[in-house]
Amino acid sequence: MTAVAAPNWTAIAQAFREVLGREQVVERREELLVYECDGLTNHRQIPPLVVLPRSTEEVAAAVRLCNQFDLSFVARGAGTGLSGGALPVEDSVLIVTARMRQILEIDYDNLRVRVQPGVINSWVTQATTGAGFFYAPDPSSQSVCSIGGNVAENSGGVHCLKHGVTNNHVLGLTLVLPDASVIQVGGAIADLPGYDLCGIFVGSEGTLGIATEVTLRLQPLPQSVQVLLADFSSIEAAGAAVSGIIAAGILPAGLELMDNFSINAVEDVVKSDCYPRDAAAILLAELDGRASEVAQQIRDVEAVCRQHGARSIAIATDAEDRLRLWKGRKAAFAAVGRISPSYYVQDGVIPRSTLPFVLHEIEQLGQKHGYRVANVFHAGDGNLHPLILYDRNDPGALERVEALGGEILKLCVNVGGSISGEHGIGADKRCYMPAMFSSEDLETMQWLRHAFDPLERANPTKVFPTPRTCGERGSVNSIPVGVELY
Amino acid sequence: MTAVAAPNWTAIAQAFREVLGREQVVERREELLVYECDGLTNHRQIPPLVVLPRSTEEVAAAVRLCNQFDLSFVARGAGTGLSGGALPVEDSVLIVTARMRQILEIDYDNLRVRVQPGVINSWVTQATTGAGFFYAPDPSSQSVCSIGGNVAENSGGVHCLKHGVTNNHVLGLTLVLPDASVIQVGGAIADLPGYDLCGIFVGSEGTLGIATEVTLRLQPLPQSVQVLLADFSSIEAAGAAVSGIIAAGILPAGLELMDNFSINAVEDVVKSDCYPRDAAAILLAELDGRASEVAQQIRDVEAVCRQHGARSIAIATDAEDRLRLWKGRKAAFAAVGRISPSYYVQDGVIPRSTLPFVLHEIEQLGQKHGYRVANVFHAGDGNLHPLILYDRNDPGALERVEALGGEILKLCVNVGGSISGEHGIGADKRCYMPAMFSSEDLETMQWLRHAFDPLERANPTKVFPTPRTCGERGSVNSIPVGVELY
Repeated sequence: MTAVAAPNWTAIAQAFREVLGREQVVERREELLVYECDGLTNHRQIPPLVVLPRSTEEVAAAVRLCNQFDLSFVARGAGTGLSGGALPVEDSVLIVTARMRQILEIDYDNLRVRVQPGVINSWVTQATTGAGFFYAPDPSSQSVCSIGGNVAENSGGVHCLKHGVTNNHVLGLTLVLPDASVIQVGGAIADLPGYDLCGIFVGSEGTLGIATEVTLRLQPLPQSVQVLLADFSSIEAAGAAVSGIIAAGILPAGLELMDNFSINAVEDVVKSDCYPRDAAAILLAELDGRASEVAQQIRDVEAVCRQHGARSIAIATDAEDRLRLWKGRKAAFAAVGRISPSYYVQDGVIPRSTLPFVLHEIEQLGQKHGYRVANVFHAGDGNLHPLILYDRNDPGALERVEALGGEILKLCVNVGGSISGEHGIGADKRCYMPAMFSSEDLETMQWLRHAFDPLERANPTKVFPTPRTCGERGSVNSIPVGVELY
Repeated sequence: MTAVAAPNWTAIAQAFREVLGREQVVERREELLVYECDGLTNHRQIPPLVVLPRSTEEVAAAVRLCNQFDLSFVARGAGTGLSGGALPVEDSVLIVTARMRQILEIDYDNLRVRVQPGVINSWVTQATTGAGFFYAPDPSSQSVCSIGGNVAENSGGVHCLKHGVTNNHVLGLTLVLPDASVIQVGGAIADLPGYDLCGIFVGSEGTLGIATEVTLRLQPLPQSVQVLLADFSSIEAAGAAVSGIIAAGILPAGLELMDNFSINAVEDVVKSDCYPRDAAAILLAELDGRASEVAQQIRDVEAVCRQHGARSIAIATDAEDRLRLWKGRKAAFAAVGRISPSYYVQDGVIPRSTLPFVLHEIEQLGQKHGYRVANVFHAGDGNLHPLILYDRNDPGALERVEALGGEILKLCVNVGGSISGEHGIGADKRCYMPAMFSSEDLETMQWLRHAFDPLERANPTKVFPTPRTCGERGSVNSIPVGVELY
């Protein structure tokens, strides 16, 4: 993908200014610095050129210019992603959707809303809550992350246990493909005939094109929401309660677990006085739905927790009490950040039934490497977020922590899980893909990618392992045949 | 795809016998006749050769032989599909999964089951119901249709309003691709990183390869099931009640509508005495879940129906009463078949809010063409099944009825709906694809298809329109560039 001669960025910027207008092009170094990383802050690359299109037509024009100058491109929403999906790539134009922030259509009758990709996740709920609706996927960055980024990364969130991840809420997309053509995929209704192109695009991390309009599913606001906090004297008991709740046919909106270390970190900082400091683990279960159902379900969740040895139960039925119970969970990452100079968040998935075993193994791995690991995560769907505490200023610490993070991912894969639950692969985890997928699987994904993008112009070097990005060691045997070595 | 010289079927059959064994190959004309059509009985084609593999390896061996002899192939499960997806194609080997009927693994802890593709849909529930679980997608053919066919067609059913279609229940697949390679897609857990190859394969109607193992999601059996029957004096009121129920945040497991003509056809035959003969329409709502929730929801559904002018309400809480209320709905197609020499079932989807308008238009179209159209359908998800009554022996009647069916599909598309809800495109509706998808959309689907199958060996001529199958008229302008003219 590297041109033999370096691109002439002065001439290229001039061409973009002529087509898109001066205000839509960023080329001064001090302004480009803003875009040098996304939420994965240990990877940085200053983009050579940033463009800020305002419409599908302008995105298509930008991609057409990239093709004309033989340049690749990286799409970026709000830049909050945690796997480097929007990390700039050398000699690639960064196409930022931050000026595409219109809510284009709200159709309550058919429970859908059409938005531009730069619309912030929480705006969709804000715009529809007065009429009694909400948009379900709620990544913790929901007040700042964009719908386009959510689509690229197939984002999850606390409430995705019941309501599903982004993929379950995207009905249709307008796409600019890597050849600059514009197509519609999916539509206003679900489960269309033909190949599910909409389903492939969601979670493709910017490697198949750029979504320029997104039709989302709305849901009626639940009549009632209650939150239950249960504390356990062993993490195994808390894990068994999680399985017990699901097996009883109860599907909480969210079901979160925090371990003893996280509880104490939180209580040191937030002083909620809700989380018992001597608990091995707490579970937070949020139930939503019709009032009478929620009232019954909360009793059922309580019964299951008590069967599994819960020592105490607290239930919040009004908004103020709910916030009080959630406050510690929401502050957990910040609290851990206060007691440790640095921390590294991992994201992996395991089958629910392996929860006690995996948590025990993570503790062992932490001890082996000499790092403390805190666990705060979406227990209901087995989506772990181990937080590794370390000091960035220790020479070599980041590398050792990344190695520990990698061992945790391999553990997830070994028990039948996944190397990513909701943060994506991006630049961060591409070298772990061969741990999870066979070379045939990865090769099949490349077939698909090359069908859309034979020259790998859309978000090159991301998601898939290459010798350049992952080196020749170990994983090289799993590099798919036919991948270009850029 | 047509070879210049006709294939030497004697030599080909001999090669298949040598590799797969004599018992796995069918070549006698009287035995081949069994496979000349699927549920779309007005299309027939005797296959030149049928093979009955028993394992992934044997399917791969069969596909390898097809490649060796430059032959295409068609996969067939139980042959109950209604769009001709498993209809044999001239000079193509028919690969039938009827001998792949093992349930390979049941994992209650993680709510999943792994099966071979020939396993019958209802067997999955039968095998797990004792332990308190079920498999949700329930096409009306569930006692005879196969899981492999369900995967190919992304099958729905009465209970898919709440529980989702097949796509929502397939966690992973073992696939034999058109080049005979074997890959795993998806996995035991949902929402894996990388492209959603599992999601593309479900509903691809046999054009991307053959699924040889399927990992399905199990659900806990609901504690309680209740059914409500409401009758209305106008079809508009029944349609408005459907929207009202969904807007109230209630998601019935199923929500079915029958019009006056269907009601009387059913009562003539079944004599259930449940369905008022003077009702313009009845709604049947099945609620499932925990006992207290269902009890509350049924009262809420009743209230919404009364608000929309329901004349009477009947509620069934025990199994016997439920069966009585469902009996007429389940017998509806057969009852219509009794009062008319022939009938033609259409399958389309519309946005729920357009229900009253569309039903009125269908009646007008029926009058214009001189045919009676009965409506019995999945109202909750807007999935229409208009039944056109006619006499197959009238010269030209089938062509006229197909034309009327086509106009109904165009009506669905015009209101923002779809040309297929759950029956698929197959051989039957490929010529309507350009009514729904632009040439760019269809071309993008061909990119994807050719990434897996550049020679179009898997189920050729199905799903996508070609000049040969759809003629040069009208739709030819929408034929995607690059489609081969076979």
